[in-house]
Amino acid sequence: MSLTQHLSTSVSSSSSAFLASSGFTYRSRDVSFPSKNIEICRCVATPQEEKITYKTKVSRNANMAKLQAGYLFPEIARRRNAHLEKYPDSKVISLGIGDTTEPIPEVITSAMAKRAQALSTLEGYSGYGAEQGEKPLRAAIASTFYQDLGIEEDDIFVSDGAKCDISRLQLLFGSEITVAVQDPSYPAYVDSSVIIGQTGLYEKDAEKYGKIEYMRCNPENGFFPDLSKVSRADMIFFCSPNNPTGSAATREQLTQLVQFAKDNGSIIVYDSAYAMYITDDKPRSIFEIPGAKEVALETVSFSKYAGFTGVRLGWTVVPKELLFSDGFPVAKDFNRIVCTCFNGASNVVQAGGLACLSPEGRNAMQKVVGFYKENAEIIMDTFTSLGFNVYGGRNAPYVWVHFPGRSSWDVFSEILEKTHVVTTPGSGFGPGGEGFIRVSAFGHRENVLEACRRFKQLYK
Amino acid sequence: MSLTQHLSTSVSSSSSAFLASSGFTYRSRDVSFPSKNIEICRCVATPQEEKITYKTKVSRNANMAKLQAGYLFPEIARRRNAHLEKYPDSKVISLGIGDTTEPIPEVITSAMAKRAQALSTLEGYSGYGAEQGEKPLRAAIASTFYQDLGIEEDDIFVSDGAKCDISRLQLLFGSEITVAVQDPSYPAYVDSSVIIGQTGLYEKDAEKYGKIEYMRCNPENGFFPDLSKVSRADMIFFCSPNNPTGSAATREQLTQLVQFAKDNGSIIVYDSAYAMYITDDKPRSIFEIPGAKEVALETVSFSKYAGFTGVRLGWTVVPKELLFSDGFPVAKDFNRIVCTCFNGASNVVQAGGLACLSPEGRNAMQKVVGFYKENAEIIMDTFTSLGFNVYGGRNAPYVWVHFPGRSSWDVFSEILEKTHVVTTPGSGFGPGGEGFIRVSAFGHRENVLEACRRFKQLYK
Repeated sequence: MSLTQHLSTSVSSSSSAFLASSGFTYRSRDVSFPSKNIEICRCVATPQEEKITYKTKVSRNANMAKLQAGYLFPEIARRRNAHLEKYPDSKVISLGIGDTTEPIPEVITSAMAKRAQALSTLEGYSGYGAEQGEKPLRAAIASTFYQDLGIEEDDIFVSDGAKCDISRLQLLFGSEITVAVQDPSYPAYVDSSVIIGQTGLYEKDAEKYGKIEYMRCNPENGFFPDLSKVSRADMIFFCSPNNPTGSAATREQLTQLVQFAKDNGSIIVYDSAYAMYITDDKPRSIFEIPGAKEVALETVSFSKYAGFTGVRLGWTVVPKELLFSDGFPVAKDFNRIVCTCFNGASNVVQAGGLACLSPEGRNAMQKVVGFYKENAEIIMDTFTSLGFNVYGGRNAPYVWVHFPGRSSWDVFSEILEKTHVVTTPGSGFGPGGEGFIRVSAFGHRENVLEACRRFKQLYK
Repeated sequence: MSLTQHLSTSVSSSSSAFLASSGFTYRSRDVSFPSKNIEICRCVATPQEEKITYKTKVSRNANMAKLQAGYLFPEIARRRNAHLEKYPDSKVISLGIGDTTEPIPEVITSAMAKRAQALSTLEGYSGYGAEQGEKPLRAAIASTFYQDLGIEEDDIFVSDGAKCDISRLQLLFGSEITVAVQDPSYPAYVDSSVIIGQTGLYEKDAEKYGKIEYMRCNPENGFFPDLSKVSRADMIFFCSPNNPTGSAATREQLTQLVQFAKDNGSIIVYDSAYAMYITDDKPRSIFEIPGAKEVALETVSFSKYAGFTGVRLGWTVVPKELLFSDGFPVAKDFNRIVCTCFNGASNVVQAGGLACLSPEGRNAMQKVVGFYKENAEIIMDTFTSLGFNVYGGRNAPYVWVHFPGRSSWDVFSEILEKTHVVTTPGSGFGPGGEGFIRVSAFGHRENVLEACRRFKQLYK
């Protein structure tokens, strides 16, 4: 990439929220009255305006340079925005990034509003909270999700979301460890692994980073990797119900996984952000598997349960029993990371989390989850009726549709161009996702129905 | 440390909020009715209950192992809690960790409450926001704090606080760079530098980590380092008004600093979390210095302006003009970090931030800042009247009191033992802080007055 290219593209492109206005504000240096907005499109800035005058002597982090293109979801947002520019009047429906759309139940928002309002009173004010989260919330998480599993309040670290905790876990484990991921998988695992320096360069032909073990998950193996073919890694990222395939692992499969980790001395980072979407008897937590506390930690989020994608709240469970090879508890180092690199989730938001776990809040969350599950069913039925092989969707808010022999990005573009519906190309989740698209069940009902009508027109 | 010791101390000690109850909840594995709380002190657990049965083969991150003791502020909380156990009836006053105490102005909490409440409506709901922050807040920050400084809305990355952003900056720059810090300085700079792997081992005699350049700041040099004696580093952490010394750098000093960075090709990470405490004509932003945009980024927080220590909101400015040695914009890599390792500050909290920057909100923040500044004056006057040399406090909420020839931890313990007031030992901020204590001006007025009465009794 040339320097001109570096500078001529906007440096802080956003993901989902903004529809990319590129106007900027001009400020006079010599005049003190309020500045005037002049609408100039950045792309027409003349070359000399952006001439490089000075470069520092700080080398760019070589790990950052390994990263390919943009993070997946901002890239999708970029393409959606380009589509909107091309078809300004199109009614674009987004079933792409997995963003929740339904209002948060009132019992939860009221609790946040009350806590916020109380902060303006002497009795209700609170400053720095414990970095690990407020005690009542940690206790409520333990009793709601880990009753009878031997997970205690102080094993739970409240966070501002699973994505953020994944990076804190990478800081904890450092650059010297090796990692394995499901292929396909949520891109933050691989990208954060690249950033911390655990990987080699990106290998274009294989569409993989060096030194990462990609555990292929496909219809042939029921979306559970053939562990007999998986090389040992220090850390195994495992997401169930899976993003993007929507597949939830069975008790037998997870028992195999725990045994595999135990045989290899590996640590499983179990992402159960979608566990509430499970309605059959599959495990909702890795800690339902005997012995898992010695080889696993678990990261979870309120995002897809309570519509907290913008509110930001999650947690990570690090059992005291999980030990490094020298016997040092992983939880002690994670606690140090949390205290040094984080300052706790917002107190206002934690009040919302606590309300989520009241009996009323739990019912309300179940309703929201049930609503999205109905959407998933509608999407599954649509693609099934069109003759596609469809996976996921039953215990997850994602439907994984197979387009054998086709490029995911081509299918993504075809669907966007012809139906104005945004999906996610399977290959964005790893080479194992090639030939699939992920359709998210997060959306207003009428949009999901309309998207399905358009799919039927396109693929009838 | 032996394995028994690893396991017998609690792994997730908190910093400030909890007064260390060490009871834990016992859960029966075979009974499904609600579990019963049995108050057992963790410290009496019998050895066989905590016997190690299994260790993974994952090596502990060697960088984590370099860290000394606990992060400073949790350590202080631990000592305060131990003090409370010893003197359960003592009225402990905390002028230690710098935690805000005054209610948040109503105009700000109302905005948060309103936003929270709106999330339960179809029109008011929002999911994932831009990782970089909401557009109106970025625009308001730019126009409020960087008017006429050439910093634009898209140079601003909204965050959940400066401490969190410091770690994200470390992820961005990686382990291969060298760093310089003011000595003394806010411990998160050094600790995050150790965690990412930029440093050597801790050198006990020097009380320093290898490979970090400690820039001594003391009364003799007016708390501004003698740059002629400072070795080049890739990244220079510089905090003004300084935590802990309370000293604010002059325009001439900052001009020297920018020139020093330019001569060396270094990047300044300028922490201006206390800038609103400046009431004379000292710069409030590094970008007031010509040429700074090519060598500096700036991290700021709402914590000490609006009492947001528990609410969590801040921002970092990364100018487009700041370039790595290969010409690649630092902001582009920071944007990638923000998109991959973070998911934006809470939408509810961002509504509060926007309210802070309304004319009414700005006035309200000024009043809060003014109140703490009065506290600082009371503390300064007290120690001055007792014959101590006192620094800071004028443009900062911290008073830096000199106890020549004495150990900071000894003074800390003496004050705690005899007055039940928690302060912060200067040596916790680096070897250059030895012989000082930091007294925070954050506190209710009656507590500050009472603490000062007790100081007068102790040191009369």
